[in-house]
Amino acid sequence: MKLLLISNSGTPLYHWRKKEIADFLGGRKTFFVSAANISNPRKYFEDARKSLNEVGVNLNHLDLEENPNNQLEQVEAILMGGGNTYHLLNELAKAELMEKLRSKVKNGTPYVGLSAGANISGPNILTTNDWNVLASTFFEALGLVSFNISPHYLDPHDKKNFSGESKDDRIKEYQEFHSNNVLGMEEKTMIAVADGNITVAGEGKVKLFIKNQNPKEYKSGEFFTT
Amino acid sequence: MKLLLISNSGTPLYHWRKKEIADFLGGRKTFFVSAANISNPRKYFEDARKSLNEVGVNLNHLDLEENPNNQLEQVEAILMGGGNTYHLLNELAKAELMEKLRSKVKNGTPYVGLSAGANISGPNILTTNDWNVLASTFFEALGLVSFNISPHYLDPHDKKNFSGESKDDRIKEYQEFHSNNVLGMEEKTMIAVADGNITVAGEGKVKLFIKNQNPKEYKSGEFFTT
Repeated sequence: MKLLLISNSGTPLYHWRKKEIADFLGGRKTFFVSAANISNPRKYFEDARKSLNEVGVNLNHLDLEENPNNQLEQVEAILMGGGNTYHLLNELAKAELMEKLRSKVKNGTPYVGLSAGANISGPNILTTNDWNVLASTFFEALGLVSFNISPHYLDPHDKKNFSGESKDDRIKEYQEFHSNNVLGMEEKTMIAVADGNITVAGEGKVKLFIKNQNPKEYKSGEFFTT
Repeated sequence: MKLLLISNSGTPLYHWRKKEIADFLGGRKTFFVSAANISNPRKYFEDARKSLNEVGVNLNHLDLEENPNNQLEQVEAILMGGGNTYHLLNELAKAELMEKLRSKVKNGTPYVGLSAGANISGPNILTTNDWNVLASTFFEALGLVSFNISPHYLDPHDKKNFSGESKDDRIKEYQEFHSNNVLGMEEKTMIAVADGNITVAGEGKVKLFIKNQNPKEYKSGEFFTT
């Protein structure tokens, strides 16, 4: 299994690490899923296509409105775009793509996940920062990795200035109900997963939360297993 | 109907506006719901009881583990504590208290809602910042007011530093699926709702998001209707 999971930074689209994405895709026929975008998924695809074209990636659209099941056979690599995680999972589940995607990636199709697209590679999406604005009841995700992901991770803030919950508080709440690990990923940070080995790259750190233990931090060039 | 809805600031508990809470409760037999707290709801009640005792409020516990339906008759005022909104709503729904609470408050029982407790006074909880860590499928709330509430509201941040969605982005996403208004409430800010008139108090501002319009801001002493 080959995954590249990215806690993205928005502007300009993918600029910060386009080269790594292109290298990872390695010239395969790549399909982009833009369904995490609520307001204009087609424009999101067009923007991504233009941006990645500059590094030689010729992106196709796996448009969930257009019989995506028929296109699946052609898919040699998947780029799962960011946006609202609840919306993305809901659209994939409604299109009955979850089991087929899971199976394809487990059988070796390379998968790049950006923020929401990284989120759905875990067992469930309950550690997303996104709001469930569509009242979706789909929570179970692709389960390509055993740990949950929380992109756009931030270290705890000073509660004197703002008393709302930190990401650490929320991950602790999650682990009151679930026993699996959670990986907080700062922006502009990514992990490459290859046969169970996880390597960190990018500008920030990741933080692995193991239930009832102190979290462990890893930076670019470091690796870990779970 | 008499509501006091508070975007709370945590430490020390209720310190910043205890006096207003005591005045609003006006010596009525008040029951505290601590079920938004995941890790230790009983301790949360004890802390609240001690804190409000200093301003002459003798708080009772509406403990959802202890046949709360039997206690409802005695309830003259309700203090709905903060924590995880999904957990709170799930516990209230499981205890079959939603309809009875709604009816009591609509018939005049004063209601104070703190953060998650304020959230559930709207039509649904889909604008909470909290994570649905328990995979709850209860989203419909008390509907005491027509607008949704988003406590711990923050103005948009500079996307150059952090590209994750702002509250404004998320509220816009919500209004792609729902037509009702959303009230963002900064910390240490509250609104008093009395027969349809809404008055703002506290140290911050509230921001009313009306679908397809520019949001309107109100500060302490200002009032509005919806």
